[in-house]
Amino acid sequence: MTGARPGNIPPLDPAAATPFYRQIYDRFRGAIASGVLKPGDRIPSARALTKELGLARGTIEAAYSLLAAEGYIQARGQAGTIVTPDLKPQMPVSKPILSAESSGIVPTSFRPDSSLPFQMGLPALDTFPRKIWARLGARCARAMLPADMVHPAVSGLPALRAEIAAYLQVSRGIDCSPSQVFVTSGYRHTIALIVHTLLKAGDRVWLENPGYPPTRELFRHMQIESIPVPVDRDGLVVSDGIRQAPDARAAVVTPAHQSPLCVSLSLPRRQALLDWAAGNEAWIIEDDYDGEYRYVSRPLPALKSLDREGRVLYAGTFSKVLFPSLRLAYLIVPKAEVARFEEMTEAMAAGSPELTQAVVTAFITEGHFARHIQRMRRLYAERREMTAAGLESVLAGHVSIDSQPGGMHLILRLLGERSDRELVALMRREGLYAEALTDWMIEGEAAPALLLNFTNIDSQRTAETLARRILKLL
Amino acid sequence: MTGARPGNIPPLDPAAATPFYRQIYDRFRGAIASGVLKPGDRIPSARALTKELGLARGTIEAAYSLLAAEGYIQARGQAGTIVTPDLKPQMPVSKPILSAESSGIVPTSFRPDSSLPFQMGLPALDTFPRKIWARLGARCARAMLPADMVHPAVSGLPALRAEIAAYLQVSRGIDCSPSQVFVTSGYRHTIALIVHTLLKAGDRVWLENPGYPPTRELFRHMQIESIPVPVDRDGLVVSDGIRQAPDARAAVVTPAHQSPLCVSLSLPRRQALLDWAAGNEAWIIEDDYDGEYRYVSRPLPALKSLDREGRVLYAGTFSKVLFPSLRLAYLIVPKAEVARFEEMTEAMAAGSPELTQAVVTAFITEGHFARHIQRMRRLYAERREMTAAGLESVLAGHVSIDSQPGGMHLILRLLGERSDRELVALMRREGLYAEALTDWMIEGEAAPALLLNFTNIDSQRTAETLARRILKLL
Repeated sequence: MTGARPGNIPPLDPAAATPFYRQIYDRFRGAIASGVLKPGDRIPSARALTKELGLARGTIEAAYSLLAAEGYIQARGQAGTIVTPDLKPQMPVSKPILSAESSGIVPTSFRPDSSLPFQMGLPALDTFPRKIWARLGARCARAMLPADMVHPAVSGLPALRAEIAAYLQVSRGIDCSPSQVFVTSGYRHTIALIVHTLLKAGDRVWLENPGYPPTRELFRHMQIESIPVPVDRDGLVVSDGIRQAPDARAAVVTPAHQSPLCVSLSLPRRQALLDWAAGNEAWIIEDDYDGEYRYVSRPLPALKSLDREGRVLYAGTFSKVLFPSLRLAYLIVPKAEVARFEEMTEAMAAGSPELTQAVVTAFITEGHFARHIQRMRRLYAERREMTAAGLESVLAGHVSIDSQPGGMHLILRLLGERSDRELVALMRREGLYAEALTDWMIEGEAAPALLLNFTNIDSQRTAETLARRILKLL
Repeated sequence: MTGARPGNIPPLDPAAATPFYRQIYDRFRGAIASGVLKPGDRIPSARALTKELGLARGTIEAAYSLLAAEGYIQARGQAGTIVTPDLKPQMPVSKPILSAESSGIVPTSFRPDSSLPFQMGLPALDTFPRKIWARLGARCARAMLPADMVHPAVSGLPALRAEIAAYLQVSRGIDCSPSQVFVTSGYRHTIALIVHTLLKAGDRVWLENPGYPPTRELFRHMQIESIPVPVDRDGLVVSDGIRQAPDARAAVVTPAHQSPLCVSLSLPRRQALLDWAAGNEAWIIEDDYDGEYRYVSRPLPALKSLDREGRVLYAGTFSKVLFPSLRLAYLIVPKAEVARFEEMTEAMAAGSPELTQAVVTAFITEGHFARHIQRMRRLYAERREMTAAGLESVLAGHVSIDSQPGGMHLILRLLGERSDRELVALMRREGLYAEALTDWMIEGEAAPALLLNFTNIDSQRTAETLARRILKLL
């Protein structure tokens, strides 16, 4: 292990357009990529390098922070700062989805949302119409007038709200006016807006068990008590929720494809849930995160489409049908609650940038949105098929794959003794993403299973290659 | 008053690329602009037009919603829907700031954040380098890779956090590392993040009196009790805060230019505030919304730059130095609190769009940001001077203008009997914006005064023209 002295780093250029911190960052990245600095090598402390280079301490810290944020270096307290020990050469498994890192090295565990194979929650990134998107982006940026620079309406651009209302009517059977649409920056923002407007600290809320873990974290931080309600092949067991907590103030459900089990909430259960909510003046929060993606038949209408009593709040998102870094989602509220939500957004909402809203509006208006969803529905049906076939051909006997009507991930039941959590940890170390069904349980045990996203697996061959890497870990 | 039948509206074109709701919207706007529909005219109900045109109800409602959101029509319950009665022809007062409405008509009171003369909180919109911005926007849109489409880091893009840290060091004397920077979508989001992380329901917080009204609204919604603390010529009267609520958990201050009185917090007061916070483990929230804009001397270093004990949370924003519809702001937290804020943002933050963060980063990196701020500092000093001169030449004897070292608005003390609230209401009716100092008081009385933003007043002549319109209302 050799200490890297600044001498190892090519000299900085004070005349360059690139600021110093970025030059330092580039030099270190280059040194790591070329092998001048090796995993585990100690690098000079920020203080030492500040002295050595005669620059401001903040400049060095900015560079180190970037390097640490991207996983290249790690602070080890007294032991100093080192090049990340388990930094691995990039393994181009499924080419389209991997980022174009010039260094040829990607850290494995520091950007949990970077696109590892099987990364949950991501749409297909390789097939997004980026050229069209860039064209619309450029056009909207050029079209910006002074009037577009003032505070945007906190509930969203009127044109975007109108497009969302029109889309939901056609595709999800929801009859709503644009005034019922509130544009948010994502699911967490949507839930926080609902909690602030309709709930109070100490309220109890039914959550599906198993269910999306961030929801209960979010409720915990907002002093809302989560009541785990089991899910069977018909979805949420409404009678069990009523038995446990008849007076709960709300229920969060994923009726289209339960998250993560992918079952659909049956019609009798939908009706029972609506009846309970109407009878108790409770709220139903319908998280329709991927309702568009159903492969065995037409997408089911949303639960919201059956809502005669105005009890359902519908949470949609552009993260799965466009892409997550857009940070655009929306909430449909019952007509009678519009005024309360308007008051709360005026008081608390920050609003979404005009530019991203304008680009999405143009993307919808010009028909690219509907076309993209149709194409993705076909593509995901294929990729689902190919991924399942590839995994089965290699892992038969070790796993069984649930048959599911829709969604963006597969459920692999583990037939052996191995715990799903253990296997997930091993896979992460090998640069493969998976989530353990056990981690999605609020309480009780689940049969061990892996959740694997298939939307970015481009062929059966890719699935087989990845499956062989999983096989070694079983 | 004639009812408008659909016959008045040119026929819709089913083959057009424009969706029906937008065609209907365009037709109505055109009819209003051309005078076919006059202010006060009744238009068909959504239900009647649905039947008449044989389209979906949602389509008509989408069009009507847009028209209502933009102030063209008003729902009047039983009386039906009418063209807004006080719709006025556009008055091109200060050309650069008014939007390019093709219809020649702008509603006066329905978009409070559209750019009326004297609109508070807006930077100069006519002098923003929109061409450079559009070029960077187009470039960033084209450069988007699949890796840029995944969930962005919830605390902000690493490169942007580094740029913000570097900028604050140079311009505001704040020594912080990028890991202390949390990118947010605006001031409200910043405050909510602080409350969630460091405060709990029932906590008491000092607020400046007078002070920015949305802050106390926000605290009220989050069950935080506001303690109004008076402001004198040295800024917040710290001793009064200590007398009233020594055990408050936090204090919100605007040390650079008190909002709205524009006084600077004196050095002894800064020290007293820091001592109180350190002694009581309380937090100081420094809202530095326009610290860059000081005209009589160099900008003062931020209060945060004196923070040895890690008690100051620094809230900055791009709304005043770039523009509000960007929805980007930031929070600097003390080093010791970074982990708590990281945990809270992971649980609750939605994150900001990659594209807007990338454009701002490029804008800073390439030097446009520093240049723009320098230019605006000079321009605002001039516009402040010209606006004050123009107002004084017409309104002398009726008002006296406070002398202030910085900020983006003037304070006009009313010398007559007229209440500031009344005058503001009259001005709004005439298409002029102002805020009443009385409305900024949490408790107690203030001498009546108008707050008038000067950043978009382009000449002394414009100020005089506007002043003559105010004079008629006095």
